Amino acid sequence: MNMGTLDVVLAAISHNISFVGKMWSVLMVGLRLLVVLLAGFTLFSDEEERFVCNTIQPGCSNVCFDLFTPVSLFRLWLLHIIVLCLPHLAFATHIAHKLLWDRSRSGAGDVLHSRGSRGSPCSTPETSHLLLQHHGRGRDAPRCVRSAPSFHCAYLLVVILRILLEAAFVAGHFLFFGLFVPRSFLCYEAPCTSGVECYVSRPTEKTLTLHLMLGLACLSVLLSLADLVGGARTALRWRRRTEMES
Amino acid sequence: MNMGTLDVVLAAISHNISFVGKMWSVLMVGLRLLVVLLAGFTLFSDEEERFVCNTIQPGCSNVCFDLFTPVSLFRLWLLHIIVLCLPHLAFATHIAHKLLWDRSRSGAGDVLHSRGSRGSPCSTPETSHLLLQHHGRGRDAPRCVRSAPSFHCAYLLVVILRILLEAAFVAGHFLFFGLFVPRSFLCYEAPCTSGVECYVSRPTEKTLTLHLMLGLACLSVLLSLADLVGGARTALRWRRRTEMES
Amino acid sequence: MNMGTLDVVLAAISHNISFVGKMWSVLMVGLRLLVVLLAGFTLFSDEEERFVCNTIQPGCSNVCFDLFTPVSLFRLWLLHIIVLCLPHLAFATHIAHKLLWDRSRSGAGDVLHSRGSRGSPCSTPETSHLLLQHHGRGRDAPRCVRSAPSFHCAYLLVVILRILLEAAFVAGHFLFFGLFVPRSFLCYEAPCTSGVECYVSRPTEKTLTLHLMLGLACLSVLLSLADLVGGARTALRWRRRTEMES
Amino acid sequence: MNMGTLDVVLAAISHNISFVGKMWSVLMVGLRLLVVLLAGFTLFSDEEERFVCNTIQPGCSNVCFDLFTPVSLFRLWLLHIIVLCLPHLAFATHIAHKLLWDRSRSGAGDVLHSRGSRGSPCSTPETSHLLLQHHGRGRDAPRCVRSAPSFHCAYLLVVILRILLEAAFVAGHFLFFGLFVPRSFLCYEAPCTSGVECYVSRPTEKTLTLHLMLGLACLSVLLSLADLVGGARTALRWRRRTEMES
Amino acid sequence: MNMGTLDVVLAAISHNISFVGKMWSVLMVGLRLLVVLLAGFTLFSDEEERFVCNTIQPGCSNVCFDLFTPVSLFRLWLLHIIVLCLPHLAFATHIAHKLLWDRSRSGAGDVLHSRGSRGSPCSTPETSHLLLQHHGRGRDAPRCVRSAPSFHCAYLLVVILRILLEAAFVAGHFLFFGLFVPRSFLCYEAPCTSGVECYVSRPTEKTLTLHLMLGLACLSVLLSLADLVGGARTALRWRRRTEMES
Amino acid sequence: MNMGTLDVVLAAISHNISFVGKMWSVLMVGLRLLVVLLAGFTLFSDEEERFVCNTIQPGCSNVCFDLFTPVSLFRLWLLHIIVLCLPHLAFATHIAHKLLWDRSRSGAGDVLHSRGSRGSPCSTPETSHLLLQHHGRGRDAPRCVRSAPSFHCAYLLVVILRILLEAAFVAGHFLFFGLFVPRSFLCYEAPCTSGVECYVSRPTEKTLTLHLMLGLACLSVLLSLADLVGGARTALRWRRRTEMES
Repeated sequence: MNMGTLDVVLAAISHNISFVGKMWSVLMVGLRLLVVLLAGFTLFSDEEERFVCNTIQPGCSNVCFDLFTPVSLFRLWLLHIIVLCLPHLAFATHIAHKLLWDRSRSGAGDVLHSRGSRGSPCSTPETSHLLLQHHGRGRDAPRCVRSAPSFHCAYLLVVILRILLEAAFVAGHFLFFGLFVPRSFLCYEAPCTSGVECYVSRPTEKTLTLHLMLGLACLSVLLSLADLVGGARTALRWRRRTEMES
Repeated sequence: MNMGTLDVVLAAISHNISFVGKMWSVLMVGLRLLVVLLAGFTLFSDEEERFVCNTIQPGCSNVCFDLFTPVSLFRLWLLHIIVLCLPHLAFATHIAHKLLWDRSRSGAGDVLHSRGSRGSPCSTPETSHLLLQHHGRGRDAPRCVRSAPSFHCAYLLVVILRILLEAAFVAGHFLFFGLFVPRSFLCYEAPCTSGVECYVSRPTEKTLTLHLMLGLACLSVLLSLADLVGGARTALRWRRRTEMES
Repeated sequence: MNMGTLDVVLAAISHNISFVGKMWSVLMVGLRLLVVLLAGFTLFSDEEERFVCNTIQPGCSNVCFDLFTPVSLFRLWLLHIIVLCLPHLAFATHIAHKLLWDRSRSGAGDVLHSRGSRGSPCSTPETSHLLLQHHGRGRDAPRCVRSAPSFHCAYLLVVILRILLEAAFVAGHFLFFGLFVPRSFLCYEAPCTSGVECYVSRPTEKTLTLHLMLGLACLSVLLSLADLVGGARTALRWRRRTEMES
Repeated sequence: MNMGTLDVVLAAISHNISFVGKMWSVLMVGLRLLVVLLAGFTLFSDEEERFVCNTIQPGCSNVCFDLFTPVSLFRLWLLHIIVLCLPHLAFATHIAHKLLWDRSRSGAGDVLHSRGSRGSPCSTPETSHLLLQHHGRGRDAPRCVRSAPSFHCAYLLVVILRILLEAAFVAGHFLFFGLFVPRSFLCYEAPCTSGVECYVSRPTEKTLTLHLMLGLACLSVLLSLADLVGGARTALRWRRRTEMES
Repeated sequence: MNMGTLDVVLAAISHNISFVGKMWSVLMVGLRLLVVLLAGFTLFSDEEERFVCNTIQPGCSNVCFDLFTPVSLFRLWLLHIIVLCLPHLAFATHIAHKLLWDRSRSGAGDVLHSRGSRGSPCSTPETSHLLLQHHGRGRDAPRCVRSAPSFHCAYLLVVILRILLEAAFVAGHFLFFGLFVPRSFLCYEAPCTSGVECYVSRPTEKTLTLHLMLGLACLSVLLSLADLVGGARTALRWRRRTEMES
Repeated sequence: MNMGTLDVVLAAISHNISFVGKMWSVLMVGLRLLVVLLAGFTLFSDEEERFVCNTIQPGCSNVCFDLFTPVSLFRLWLLHIIVLCLPHLAFATHIAHKLLWDRSRSGAGDVLHSRGSRGSPCSTPETSHLLLQHHGRGRDAPRCVRSAPSFHCAYLLVVILRILLEAAFVAGHFLFFGLFVPRSFLCYEAPCTSGVECYVSRPTEKTLTLHLMLGLACLSVLLSLADLVGGARTALRWRRRTEMES
């Protein structure tokens, strides 16, 4: 009863994510977040200020920059990482809720039906047991781990969602941005009189960062596919074992 | 008695929020706060500096910007998220106060009436019990959980308030801002001589962010409605069970 | 003896603040601090830079801005919130000191007079008892909670101070700033030759924020009055009970 | 043995500071630090940039600003608060070191001389005892609290140092800065040709902040004097009691 | 069962890193991160703004800066430190996963085969045991530490990866940047008419910082080589002992 | 077994640093870090921007600033403080590693030689014992504290290194910077046509801060010398006692 509730929830979450999934979290989310926040922020912070157009027509620079980058790469990457973490956050919330809910239900069950079932590991009201219930799955009576497979399915769903989000991200980059940030941009839009040439700041570094992010996205898809295959196998094995035992 | 007071309060709060409500907190508040703080801040930070007007009349740019955006979208979104969290903060304060108050009242009851009711789970002065009292509701004697329904009603109130706030937010956007950030703005106000055209910075990205925020608000309303229906059902079932038991 | 000293102090403080007082802390201080720090900072950060005067006389803009806003609204609001929190900080320090002091005094009393009063709940040197001493007030022998009323009086004093500070704040705004931030300002001060017109940046948004802050101050006064009435009643009831018991 | 070392040290430090001293820490250091960091930073951040001189001679503005404020008020206040906290930090280090040192010495003493003294409260090697040793001073045998008076003297020294630092600060302000920040400044220094007039930014607000800081310094001196008188009395009473007991 | 899961994982990680490896983490990663974040950030923050070219042709400065530094040294160093930490993060994830996995597998083994092996230290389900299992390796029965050598190999792999990354970093600097940041740069690129001379800001300080970073990288390689030799010896000794025991 | 590993390590580190050493850490590192980060950052942040040269030749200002301050005082001070903390970090790592290593070795010894020495305080596998082992040194059997003197020597080494680093820092300032920041600087470098005079921003405040930092460095050397003498005496006394006991 000594362990904090938070500790139990964290342990349960970490148990329900496979090794490849943990690696993915650390390498992909951690690496990309650090790269975007630390390096990307200073790289893109003055992208509009140093987007120099060869004109003195007021507003022309604003309109050309809007045409050149309808969405800033920096903010798009930030949004991508945030959206990528959402399924995992929802998964973690799902586990945390299940843990607390099972506990109060099993506790309620003690009162409503089945008195004296205190001795079975399924219904002890101790908090520390909650960890074991989902942890040492095979050790407990099969009756009380019936809710566990839902975690397997939910995790597979999370991985599939992850792959789709990454693929959409890579495809979107190919379609809307291309693979290179050009050095200059020709713009014939309304307030600018005739064609105006605008010069982008640090195009080489931006191109290299773009390649790095796309490469990391591809690596992330590969890791997620490996995670998917491993997760599917574990789920199948688990189902067979449950069927044999029941 | 080992668990910290904070831990007990946190567990009680997390128990009194339904699964949909937890999902809503994580997805809606977390996602929107991250989007507004990380992406919105850099997007809107230079909105007035890069609002370029085709004039050299001093003060004209100031007056036109005030007409164009009487309230900054960034600060409005920030305020909206802060106001949206207030009912939940009040709800959490309500639960925390109730927990500590019930405890001291039941303790006081021991002294004032003091009929050796120490053995009943309602009046044990242990802190860890406070969690169980509101947690494993069905297990305790019905007499001591009489204060629990108020949490159900309070939660429903919070959800209804949430829906109203979101609806007001979406309606306010439609009325005052429209659905698009225009590329240029014509301004005929006092210090500007004749009509002056002003050019907005990054109109496309601002429009897309506006759509994202409105979409999230609609999703939030739907999630809250689901939460409301679920919460109402739980409250009804709870009331029936209490009536049957009493 | 397991609970940390900090935990005991926090629990004692939270117990000595009424429900309305807790609500006030969360809604008024939290909301206002977030609004001022997050929204106010970006709104007022360039107030002097974008205060545009129709002159090229050096120093004229400086002098006119000093006349227009002798004290920045942003810094005034910040100072107001800091000052508003001071009585509560002093109250918390008072409680924390009393808790530790009572403990060492009762411990010292054991040694100096030492009448085997170990068994009474008043003088057990356990840290966890300190919480109960001020918590379950009615349960302990009346002798040892004699210091508790001082907390009631101190809390009432804090609430009264709070109301006076808020009222002074609202009155000060009416007197020195008025209820509206004007769009332009006429200035006839020394270095400026003849009358010079200066244009304020974002006057509408500043006016709305001013109204929001004044509204919150009025709400805070109402909440504090309700807290005052409730606190006075509790103190009276408490005094009567002590008189009856003694 | 459950309490962390940090907790013991914190409790010992908080016990050795009187009520007035705690109030002083919270009100004076906390209030001034918040005022200087939050309000002072934005007020003084552009003091040199907006120090406008009526000349186009390069370097003249730099030289005049150096004459006008040889030391920035903001940085001086920051330094003052940091220096003011140093005696307290040294005092806290002194207590923390004494606690750990006494413990290992008394432990060593058990082994080298005097075996069997385990039962006395002075030499039990339990960490939790360390708190009691300096806490419930009167309860323990007088032999083991012999090191306590040094804390009284050290604390009085800290308070005296505090008063001297504050007095030097106020006197320094009167001598070097005066009580008002002027609106303009006449400068006849080398690179400027003839007399040049420079205009200070926000002189009224700076003057008011200066008065606030000086007022807080005077209040701090008064609080410290009260603390000094109270501390001296406690030390005298303590000495008499020790003499009577020994 | 009192220790938090996090604590167990931290202790296991710290045990599996040699003394030289810990020194390397503290000195190399800590020192370089502090130097790059604190000193490097302010040194390189205005590198493009103060890259002054002797021309007024728009866009020429942008193009010349892109030629002069295709990748900013500051961002390259940041990326290098992040990439350098990745193998260690993966290693830590590996250990943490192994710890939790071994535990649930051994627990499952109890149920599936269940030979009353409860008494052996390998299969006790206590969390605190997990630490001992990998900690006091020699004390437990040899059967249950069979998974430990994988940590030795993984650590050697991490060290080798570290050396390769550092070598690639130093080589890349020699090839692409050279050892000196020049004071001026001649640029004959497209939008600039004829040759244009550009002046770099703070070349001396940048050169010294570059030398510092390269020197630290070389020191890091030497430390890592020492770590590699020590780790290889430990692994060999460990293998021999296991072979002798089995 | 309740104390966290981190707590044990912290207590052991704090025990192995003398009183003067702790004072030095708090006063010298804390004070200097606060002064440099809070006051130094705002003082030097615009040193290049406000370094005004009496010329309009492009690049001349860059070249003259590079000559005037080859290394920024702010970044040099920052680097100095970081380097000064490194020996202490290495020392702390050394202690932490020794603590965990001794423990696993003594545990392994139990198994390999296993002479029932469980009862002796040296080889008990309890975590809390680790603290006592290096803490109450004299109480344990002399055999198990044989590793302690290495800490004394290592600490003396750290203090000597500290003194050398401070001395080098002060000497470097005298040689390369002198004791005063001049108000103006004459520059005859390549791109500037003829001699150009440049004006430094805030020379008086920079000179005073330089004096403050040099004074603190001298004080630090004196404190470290006192620490060295005290540490050497303790080490000698310790050696004599060990020799007498063995």
